[in-house]
Amino acid sequence: MELSPTRQKLYTIIFGTGTPAGKRFDMVLIYLIAISVLAMILESVSVIEGRYGVWLNAVEWGFTGIFTLEYLVRIYCSPHPLRYMRSFYGLVDLLAILPSYLGLFLAGMNYLLIIRLLRVLRIFRILKLVRYLSEANILMRAMVMSRRKILIFFSAVLVLSTIFGSLMFLVEGPENGFTSIPKSIYWTIVTITTVGYGDITPQTVIGQFIAAAAMLTGYSIIAVPTGILTAELATEMQRERTSRRCEDCHSSGHESDALYCRYCGTPLSD
Amino acid sequence: MELSPTRQKLYTIIFGTGTPAGKRFDMVLIYLIAISVLAMILESVSVIEGRYGVWLNAVEWGFTGIFTLEYLVRIYCSPHPLRYMRSFYGLVDLLAILPSYLGLFLAGMNYLLIIRLLRVLRIFRILKLVRYLSEANILMRAMVMSRRKILIFFSAVLVLSTIFGSLMFLVEGPENGFTSIPKSIYWTIVTITTVGYGDITPQTVIGQFIAAAAMLTGYSIIAVPTGILTAELATEMQRERTSRRCEDCHSSGHESDALYCRYCGTPLSD
Amino acid sequence: MELSPTRQKLYTIIFGTGTPAGKRFDMVLIYLIAISVLAMILESVSVIEGRYGVWLNAVEWGFTGIFTLEYLVRIYCSPHPLRYMRSFYGLVDLLAILPSYLGLFLAGMNYLLIIRLLRVLRIFRILKLVRYLSEANILMRAMVMSRRKILIFFSAVLVLSTIFGSLMFLVEGPENGFTSIPKSIYWTIVTITTVGYGDITPQTVIGQFIAAAAMLTGYSIIAVPTGILTAELATEMQRERTSRRCEDCHSSGHESDALYCRYCGTPLSD
Amino acid sequence: MELSPTRQKLYTIIFGTGTPAGKRFDMVLIYLIAISVLAMILESVSVIEGRYGVWLNAVEWGFTGIFTLEYLVRIYCSPHPLRYMRSFYGLVDLLAILPSYLGLFLAGMNYLLIIRLLRVLRIFRILKLVRYLSEANILMRAMVMSRRKILIFFSAVLVLSTIFGSLMFLVEGPENGFTSIPKSIYWTIVTITTVGYGDITPQTVIGQFIAAAAMLTGYSIIAVPTGILTAELATEMQRERTSRRCEDCHSSGHESDALYCRYCGTPLSD
Repeated sequence: MELSPTRQKLYTIIFGTGTPAGKRFDMVLIYLIAISVLAMILESVSVIEGRYGVWLNAVEWGFTGIFTLEYLVRIYCSPHPLRYMRSFYGLVDLLAILPSYLGLFLAGMNYLLIIRLLRVLRIFRILKLVRYLSEANILMRAMVMSRRKILIFFSAVLVLSTIFGSLMFLVEGPENGFTSIPKSIYWTIVTITTVGYGDITPQTVIGQFIAAAAMLTGYSIIAVPTGILTAELATEMQRERTSRRCEDCHSSGHESDALYCRYCGTPLSD
Repeated sequence: MELSPTRQKLYTIIFGTGTPAGKRFDMVLIYLIAISVLAMILESVSVIEGRYGVWLNAVEWGFTGIFTLEYLVRIYCSPHPLRYMRSFYGLVDLLAILPSYLGLFLAGMNYLLIIRLLRVLRIFRILKLVRYLSEANILMRAMVMSRRKILIFFSAVLVLSTIFGSLMFLVEGPENGFTSIPKSIYWTIVTITTVGYGDITPQTVIGQFIAAAAMLTGYSIIAVPTGILTAELATEMQRERTSRRCEDCHSSGHESDALYCRYCGTPLSD
Repeated sequence: MELSPTRQKLYTIIFGTGTPAGKRFDMVLIYLIAISVLAMILESVSVIEGRYGVWLNAVEWGFTGIFTLEYLVRIYCSPHPLRYMRSFYGLVDLLAILPSYLGLFLAGMNYLLIIRLLRVLRIFRILKLVRYLSEANILMRAMVMSRRKILIFFSAVLVLSTIFGSLMFLVEGPENGFTSIPKSIYWTIVTITTVGYGDITPQTVIGQFIAAAAMLTGYSIIAVPTGILTAELATEMQRERTSRRCEDCHSSGHESDALYCRYCGTPLSD
Repeated sequence: MELSPTRQKLYTIIFGTGTPAGKRFDMVLIYLIAISVLAMILESVSVIEGRYGVWLNAVEWGFTGIFTLEYLVRIYCSPHPLRYMRSFYGLVDLLAILPSYLGLFLAGMNYLLIIRLLRVLRIFRILKLVRYLSEANILMRAMVMSRRKILIFFSAVLVLSTIFGSLMFLVEGPENGFTSIPKSIYWTIVTITTVGYGDITPQTVIGQFIAAAAMLTGYSIIAVPTGILTAELATEMQRERTSRRCEDCHSSGHESDALYCRYCGTPLSD
């Protein structure tokens, strides 16, 4: 499907990031999203809502209008509108405006809970920012590559939490706040991740002993995801470094700022 | 000892993981274990137990039956039944069904505590999952290789905890919650691992000073297991990567998805 | 601009670190700053202030005099006085003495809050120490080099905190302490960084489930800054270790196995 | 100074670790220290002290006798008795027995506090174990090598804590628990190290904002000591690994347990 010149130009500005106009568009959008999210966060503070509620409501509708326009233009200038609408970013863009309109639709009725839900849902507009964060691709690649290992690690953490949680439920029992195994598992996760709220704490000597064991376990397995990611990141960084080759002696591993091959002295091309 | 064809076939399915049937058997078992553990966790919630207790009891016996069958078939088709029964996984498989039967045996009596113990013990059925987790062998190897260093590290943590615990017992004393040295050691472990429940906190100025010193110590030794494991993991990963060699120029360090030697261009065998 | 011999000599002592006199001057200054900050910290303890207030006040004015003298001499002997005054260290040196004089100026009036503010502001005198800390340039360089990645990481943490905070505000609501989205975001940061005060804790089952998810997320992303910095530090350390210099272009940072300078191609001596 | 054969033999057993007798002596001593420390820990529990106090007292004197004997024999068989007595381990060995005798000396008087102090001081006997832990020399070397960097890091943490603490004292003030700057610094260390007791928490909005900033700072600088140590450890491990070279093909990078060169199959010399 061939695009008209106008649509092609719009596409370069809105979807592209290479041209100055495209970059300016992205910057403006980032600021708009940030301000819009800030306004919604402030709206949730009852003191501010009471005093500036009308203003915040107006601001909110202004932003909804802008993001609706952005969504429609994106559909208009995309070469594959349906594919865009079904993509992750298309759904996020829709989610960013839908709750406001649904709230309008349900305003007559008194479904307070649903309205509250929709209000908060609008904040997922912040996900629109992910489009720009994801350009940090070294981090992403390192995370994707260690995905499987991190999954196995999480399974191990869950198995550990179940075992420690059951033990604590057995030893401490409902009289010390460990009212059920799910709650004990919640306590174990709070402990193993070293968060430690202190809303539930072991009271018996055996319970404190098991808790200490759980902490030391958590303390030592905190090393695992760090180790995995560090090793991957180091590899990623090294690969970036070793992607330059000497054309004469075919050696690699040159720093990105090197001008001459460090093994044979031949000038390096970029 | 030669196995009959039926037993050999069963062995391939149940113990093996290479054939499609073996993989399917493993997947079914993983789901059964997960559901069974979930049912037991829910049973511990008194509200759910009161309402669906009968159903959960029935489900429980169903699972006990399935796992008993699995245990018997494993014994039947294993080429060395006794060795299997005495192995780690054999004991775990036994432990996964024993508490249910013991509970039946003791139901007549009123040993409430023992019944509660047996109920919770059934949850160790989750250890059956370790069989599948342990396939994550890079992680395991890195952990096993840094075993000695981590042990020394834990000894150092225990010595530190004893010293800091005794000091706090001396400085704060029973009137501020540090009722005995074991309790003070428990507090030190809670602090050094940065869990920090806040159930016992230093009240005197000197106590808070020592606590701050303990925290900074903990904060800096948190680096030790991470450092050990990261260094081991990096080595393990590098080894895996460098385990492929070019047959022509004998260079190593090829990525696992490389098809050609990156030094001389010769196709790489697997 | 040519400096007179006296000013040149003073400049070498005060700004330089190479000569014995310069080193001695720096050491004296470090001790003076440390004692002065200590005196101010002690002054904030009401018991000590009540008993030794007069003495601490005298000590304070002594230090203010010394630092004022230092500031004036620095201006006098600097070859570019204005550039020094506008630099980071020049502003810190001014900030270290200004609050004391402002306090004198406002002593007649009863602006208690402002006086308290000025009192505490004097403690920023501790920033004068940064001049000496910043000599630790491996750490600094590693941090500066991973600056961009850490910024992206913080953006990701803020996006995550907003999402988790909004969810908790929705699920737990004002009745369980989550009175507004900003407060919920504060709670999420407390949780994700594994601080876990326990002043606000989830009470509902769904809330505890989301909290556990937030903790595990925090636990796994704690690895990211560590990984980034470790990889950078390892590179920095390796580069420093290989501080071999090219005799021709005087560039450093050559790997230990390099035979030729990577900037000008001259053979490297050992 | 020449030693008599008996003293030489004793020296090999007591100070050496190479002979079977020396190893057995070390093992026995480790167990004795562990049991002795355990007895003292139990003695601090008032319930146990009340019931088994007489027995624990007897056990304690038995151990004091054994360690006194060990100390005297060490002095007797050491080739440089004075140098041993003034060394770190000599002082620890003395400290391990001194409090018991001092306690006897002061038993007539009623200096309860001093007796309590001496009682707890005996627990430093655990430091005798350091002699055996310190054989973990890779860890030690990595720590000693990154000593300077870790010191600079701690200075930076203290400067940060002072600044954040002063700010919190200013913003929250004594009415919210931040009664003085030292207490606020204590709170900042509790927060930055992610311990988070929750005994003092920010109540004002600005205070919570500053607290969140402190947490994120702490979260990101937690990476620094980890990074330093990991980089050092990785270097140490690599050095150990690369210190062996094949004499035939001159390749390096052989594991410490390899017997043959993994590149050409030539037996490796140690």
